[in-house]
Amino acid sequence: MPVDPNRVIANLRELATLTSDANGAQRIAFTPTWLKARDWFATKLRGLPVTRHLDAAGNAWVTLPGASPKSLVLGSHLDSVPNGGWLDGALGVMAALEVLTAFAHDFNGRPPITIRLVDWADEEGARFGRSLFGSSAFAGTHSIDADRVRTDRDGITLDAALAHCKINIDRIGDATAEQKDVAAYLELHIEQGPILERLGLPLAVVLGTKGVERHAVTFHGQEAHSGSTPMADRHDALAAAARLALEIRTIASRHTDAVCTMGSLKTFPGIVTAVVGRCECTLDQRDLSPDILATMYREAQEASRRFASEERCTVEWSHTWSIEPIPFHPDLIALCREAVIDVAEEAISLPSGPLHDAAEVARAGIPTVMMFVQSLRGISHNKIEDTREKHLRLAVTAYERLALKTVHWLESH
Amino acid sequence: MPVDPNRVIANLRELATLTSDANGAQRIAFTPTWLKARDWFATKLRGLPVTRHLDAAGNAWVTLPGASPKSLVLGSHLDSVPNGGWLDGALGVMAALEVLTAFAHDFNGRPPITIRLVDWADEEGARFGRSLFGSSAFAGTHSIDADRVRTDRDGITLDAALAHCKINIDRIGDATAEQKDVAAYLELHIEQGPILERLGLPLAVVLGTKGVERHAVTFHGQEAHSGSTPMADRHDALAAAARLALEIRTIASRHTDAVCTMGSLKTFPGIVTAVVGRCECTLDQRDLSPDILATMYREAQEASRRFASEERCTVEWSHTWSIEPIPFHPDLIALCREAVIDVAEEAISLPSGPLHDAAEVARAGIPTVMMFVQSLRGISHNKIEDTREKHLRLAVTAYERLALKTVHWLESH
Repeated sequence: MPVDPNRVIANLRELATLTSDANGAQRIAFTPTWLKARDWFATKLRGLPVTRHLDAAGNAWVTLPGASPKSLVLGSHLDSVPNGGWLDGALGVMAALEVLTAFAHDFNGRPPITIRLVDWADEEGARFGRSLFGSSAFAGTHSIDADRVRTDRDGITLDAALAHCKINIDRIGDATAEQKDVAAYLELHIEQGPILERLGLPLAVVLGTKGVERHAVTFHGQEAHSGSTPMADRHDALAAAARLALEIRTIASRHTDAVCTMGSLKTFPGIVTAVVGRCECTLDQRDLSPDILATMYREAQEASRRFASEERCTVEWSHTWSIEPIPFHPDLIALCREAVIDVAEEAISLPSGPLHDAAEVARAGIPTVMMFVQSLRGISHNKIEDTREKHLRLAVTAYERLALKTVHWLESH
Repeated sequence: MPVDPNRVIANLRELATLTSDANGAQRIAFTPTWLKARDWFATKLRGLPVTRHLDAAGNAWVTLPGASPKSLVLGSHLDSVPNGGWLDGALGVMAALEVLTAFAHDFNGRPPITIRLVDWADEEGARFGRSLFGSSAFAGTHSIDADRVRTDRDGITLDAALAHCKINIDRIGDATAEQKDVAAYLELHIEQGPILERLGLPLAVVLGTKGVERHAVTFHGQEAHSGSTPMADRHDALAAAARLALEIRTIASRHTDAVCTMGSLKTFPGIVTAVVGRCECTLDQRDLSPDILATMYREAQEASRRFASEERCTVEWSHTWSIEPIPFHPDLIALCREAVIDVAEEAISLPSGPLHDAAEVARAGIPTVMMFVQSLRGISHNKIEDTREKHLRLAVTAYERLALKTVHWLESH
């Protein structure tokens, strides 16, 4: 039985209707709407020879036992950001369900290896600011001691929200038990960027997730009266920051896929009649190569010190967060490339700028790859997030082919 | 009887003690501390052959009648910003009192022309955001219909605050009656900038107050994910604004005394993981020449449109406030120059970047000039605002000479 891409689309539409309002999807993890989405998804398993359970971190697992306990995991996440789209996360879960259904049929209920589907808990981190919650617990890289004190905007603690979903915050590390026998992980996701649309291609092979260096950069100058302070006497912290905002583009442009972003800049005192005495900005740098990432970080630091000196300011850097680049598995990248070419004739490979649960799975040493499908306008985390239906159909077909190739690859390894 | 500069300094110290706390001067207009300062000042008039009255806008006038009703006005303001310094405004009032005292003595209580002292109400506009309140009422340029709805941070209306000081907001325009017979206005003030200190000079002749063009400039780009959006696909509103922040320095540097300031820049959504979709900034441009001011404004607009276009953004300008350049009177500028050279040997002339009550008086067509005395570190509106005592003494002496020269000038005009 071939996969039915139209059923995937129908399921996605049904889920969107069930869990969206006028502003978009509202499947924020650990909320009633998210629980409703998961209950709805469980009903879709009826008639399949599968079992379902929640692990210690709230990840939902569906298992189709095979001849071997060696497992191929297909997954993504049902949770969304507030006012989110209909595809981010949900596409991967629905496509995985479709592949699971096809395999259950094709292998007469017993594939050569075990096939599992996972719906990770709280990929987005939208409510408590901690993304990849469930997959990091699975990978054993969670940071619950640091995250325990997080609260949502209503002051509800992460601890309490988890308890409401029957998750004991002190036991989430037990989710690593799910790693047993897992031999490969595949995730289909929308690109959330503009590259495929610009190239006119439906699908891409994802090489890995870029490493991220995230810092707060503060320039200190001298607040001064905008009327009485000659240009030559100023210590303008905004001027130094503006130069860095422009220089990071030069730094990124030396490398093909690298990105550097100043997403926030704040001026103090921030009034029309005063030269800026202090300027606080954020810097987010990403690349798949650890060397390039390290080089860009060093170059930005050096540039900031040069600008500070030339503007007679000082600069200080504060580390906010970082993660190393996570390359996916070369054999699975090759299989993904074959699958994309099978259905779309042409395959490009690119790194993912956004993080995904797949990064946490790969960090656990499990062979992993992702496939991207084109996003219209590169827009995600918004109700206007969209992908052409013909591209969604190609994606489901290619994902099933990737899964089948991976089953064969696992049989021979 | 010569002026006694040490008495001016002693009076300033006494006023500071009476009206400051650990954070600096607190003589905010229309507050009890300001009223206390004015009551204290009234006691300093005892024994002088003068009368004192408040006009319809709350300006306090002290009159030493002369042989002619033609009047020379000496003035400044007793009000301060919150956490202000000991000299801004108060120096000019105390110096005027000293000159008035000396003239009353020297002319045996009846100078050839009438000498008046004015303490303008609310020069700073610190509480309601409307500076030059009293002097604009005097000049007939007040904007009370627009200002009536202003409230302070506690929600008290300007109307109510004025009523508390026995000022009827609907009658402040009657203060123009004080223009009668006023033939010249002189004001001594601290520079509030770093130029005199840098040049090692105590005093300066002020050529006028710079015109100001103040605008809000907003760049609209496209919010996008910092990880998934390649550099070449961005519409980065911050990049366009950063280029303008730097370009305004080039624009200002083409002219000797011109200044351009971006004092506030705000990024939206302003998060580390998103390319800036909207950037709001302020632009303050000042020069004494209307042509230069107009040129700088045009150049900034053109540059902003070029940067917006090159960054694939759009830009919109919104007028915030402007005032034309106000040149002081050439004859009085020449007299001020003589007076400064008399006591300090060397005189430089410069425009004032900050506005002063003198600008409103000049707008009313009254011959006006100001004298500046050096500020240490160029810092004002702060409790560390300071000027060397020897420079204060020179300033009072030079100001008295300017007043005497002006009396003679008025006698012959």
